[in-house]
Amino acid sequence: MPRINGERLVADLHRLAEFGRYETGVHRPTYSPIDVESRHWLEGKFREAGLEAAIDGVGNVFGRSRAGARRLLVGSHSETQPRAGWLDGALGVIYALEAARAFAADPDCAGLGIDAVAWADEEGHFSNMLGSRSFIDAVEEDELDRAQSRDGLRLRDALQQAGLAGRPRERLNPSRYVGYLEAHIEQGDTLDSSGLRLGIVEAIVGIWNYRLVFTGQQNHAGTTQMARRKDAGVAMVRLANRIHDRFAEIAGPRTVWTIGRMLLDPNAPSIVPGRAEMQVQFRDAEPARLARFEAALFELAGESDRAGPCRCEVALLSQSEPKAMDPQFQRLIEEAAERHAPGLHVRLPSGAGHDAQVLAHRMRAGMMFIPSLKGISHHWSEDTKEEDIVLGGQVFVDAAAAILRSDAAA
Amino acid sequence: MPRINGERLVADLHRLAEFGRYETGVHRPTYSPIDVESRHWLEGKFREAGLEAAIDGVGNVFGRSRAGARRLLVGSHSETQPRAGWLDGALGVIYALEAARAFAADPDCAGLGIDAVAWADEEGHFSNMLGSRSFIDAVEEDELDRAQSRDGLRLRDALQQAGLAGRPRERLNPSRYVGYLEAHIEQGDTLDSSGLRLGIVEAIVGIWNYRLVFTGQQNHAGTTQMARRKDAGVAMVRLANRIHDRFAEIAGPRTVWTIGRMLLDPNAPSIVPGRAEMQVQFRDAEPARLARFEAALFELAGESDRAGPCRCEVALLSQSEPKAMDPQFQRLIEEAAERHAPGLHVRLPSGAGHDAQVLAHRMRAGMMFIPSLKGISHHWSEDTKEEDIVLGGQVFVDAAAAILRSDAAA
Repeated sequence: MPRINGERLVADLHRLAEFGRYETGVHRPTYSPIDVESRHWLEGKFREAGLEAAIDGVGNVFGRSRAGARRLLVGSHSETQPRAGWLDGALGVIYALEAARAFAADPDCAGLGIDAVAWADEEGHFSNMLGSRSFIDAVEEDELDRAQSRDGLRLRDALQQAGLAGRPRERLNPSRYVGYLEAHIEQGDTLDSSGLRLGIVEAIVGIWNYRLVFTGQQNHAGTTQMARRKDAGVAMVRLANRIHDRFAEIAGPRTVWTIGRMLLDPNAPSIVPGRAEMQVQFRDAEPARLARFEAALFELAGESDRAGPCRCEVALLSQSEPKAMDPQFQRLIEEAAERHAPGLHVRLPSGAGHDAQVLAHRMRAGMMFIPSLKGISHHWSEDTKEEDIVLGGQVFVDAAAAILRSDAAA
Repeated sequence: MPRINGERLVADLHRLAEFGRYETGVHRPTYSPIDVESRHWLEGKFREAGLEAAIDGVGNVFGRSRAGARRLLVGSHSETQPRAGWLDGALGVIYALEAARAFAADPDCAGLGIDAVAWADEEGHFSNMLGSRSFIDAVEEDELDRAQSRDGLRLRDALQQAGLAGRPRERLNPSRYVGYLEAHIEQGDTLDSSGLRLGIVEAIVGIWNYRLVFTGQQNHAGTTQMARRKDAGVAMVRLANRIHDRFAEIAGPRTVWTIGRMLLDPNAPSIVPGRAEMQVQFRDAEPARLARFEAALFELAGESDRAGPCRCEVALLSQSEPKAMDPQFQRLIEEAAERHAPGLHVRLPSGAGHDAQVLAHRMRAGMMFIPSLKGISHHWSEDTKEEDIVLGGQVFVDAAAAILRSDAAA
């Protein structure tokens, strides 16, 4: 089995975190000058590792192996959320780099090819999972024309400023790959709170999003008697309560739901709100459970609408399908985990989206998790114990070798 | 009894509505060029009516009577809410003007003095009831230094642009006045929905405002399992529900309560809110009931805080005391109403704040209402039947004469 160099791995993670350091985390939005700088640094590291390195037209950094007949594609994304953690995305990219180096250093791996990749904009500063979607041919030119950041920066202008305009976008050649393998911090606390050290991802959950709009009548909060009010805010909080109650009844062990966004209009203390809206989201790995949640949501919203005095309309905003990870990849990751940390691993779904769910549309895909301390992510205080980072790197490389060998044996 | 000229009264109301006309209503924020123009027009009208007219240092337009030993101060405010109605405030100002004219034309009123006033900024573009509070000596210079509009215009700059900087602020001489009388549209629908034509205000309600802040833990909406969430948004909607339930149980016949403002932080669909806040307001004319509402609010918020997982803190924002109108003024207004519209009047509290509650701190005060069609106010579609406007003007002038005569007789 190829051996990683744990010190080198951790040193490169720390070096990558220097690009955009913020407190103990990193602020490195996609296509910002510091993100572009970090991608050129990664390109150089891929090259040092013996890979053919290049940055494509949406900023994906590829390191292509010269070895092997069929390769395993490994990696993650390298940009960060605003003022976020140093490991989210970066970990999987540096694992990929270390895998390439470990394979290159191991004569037994001479026939096994590792292609490393750092995807661009998984975090959606311009468009969610832009780099991996571009790679599987799921991004049209007009999406690039239309996309812009929350600050109103157009994606085309950002690519121009990043020096990427005019470069070709790399497209998947499916016959080149055995599949895709990605490592990531868990971002939840299942591992950390149970003293486990590795997670084998069974599926990436489906995420279903809805907007509920309540229409009542805006009125004076002093002169409008309670009996004749049509208070859209009251309708919203009443329904939000019923949703929380009902969802708790029908939830599976790992279903999550969130009302993360609420707006009253005009949102003034002395005005009865005439309009309100909230976004309801739920996630699960089971399509049937997602459908049950949706049915409950429509039923409760319909009851609210019929009961009055406010109208309640539901609009579906987005609906991503749950993506199962390849069963054989799961087994091989699990065996590698058992070799290095017997009994300290678990199979679990990923509650967050990842590039692996995009790649899974076109090839076999697998994911592994290492612990997030206290489950914190998307915050600069995100962290993982160094021993878990090193252990995860070794399991990742072992699993990659096992996947490539099983393909060669098939 | 002095007789009004209904045609002249309605014509002047229409003329005043030309200053800042918006749809069928008016947009005339305090100290805007059009507001300043309208105040100069009012000053001229007061002068034409035989009054000593002047605009003071905060924009109050005074028309002082040369007649009588003791005067009745009559009026209302002349600016409007944004894109609001043509009668709110303006009605009471033109009634005051018409009262001065009717008294001047009636030889029987030779000894009775009417001082007319158009207060500035009752609507609080810069500071609630600024003009009337200035008049009763309840505004310090540093309030003028600090106040600014929601757009960030400083009050001092607005006064400068309005040509009012440096003018003295008129202060109340209590011995000059029998009291203060104000007419206003109801702004609610008690009169309109019951076919009544006049309301005698018993009290102006107290308005108590609170901010409730919920502190939980911001987290990823996909990876944070339900059991370990500290969702500040959930805590807020749960408590809002309990507040609506409890308040409905302890409300009096005319108590109103409103949660008009809610904020989630960071208010993003995929983030478990770490912080939430809402403003809770209630109004009633009974101090004991206001105290009962406050006790219920603190009890429920305390329960929420103790139950966890989020903290809940309550801060008192403001607490205006209910202000009873003078009982003798109420009786005299009611008698005048009965003379002109037998059986078509009612005593009721005012759910909205008015300058009369400010003046009531320093002298006897009374208020009367005429109907608002469908109870609509603070919207350009606000309106009242012309026959009710004219009837109300006559009742107002009769009541003013009765109040002055009862004082002279005492």
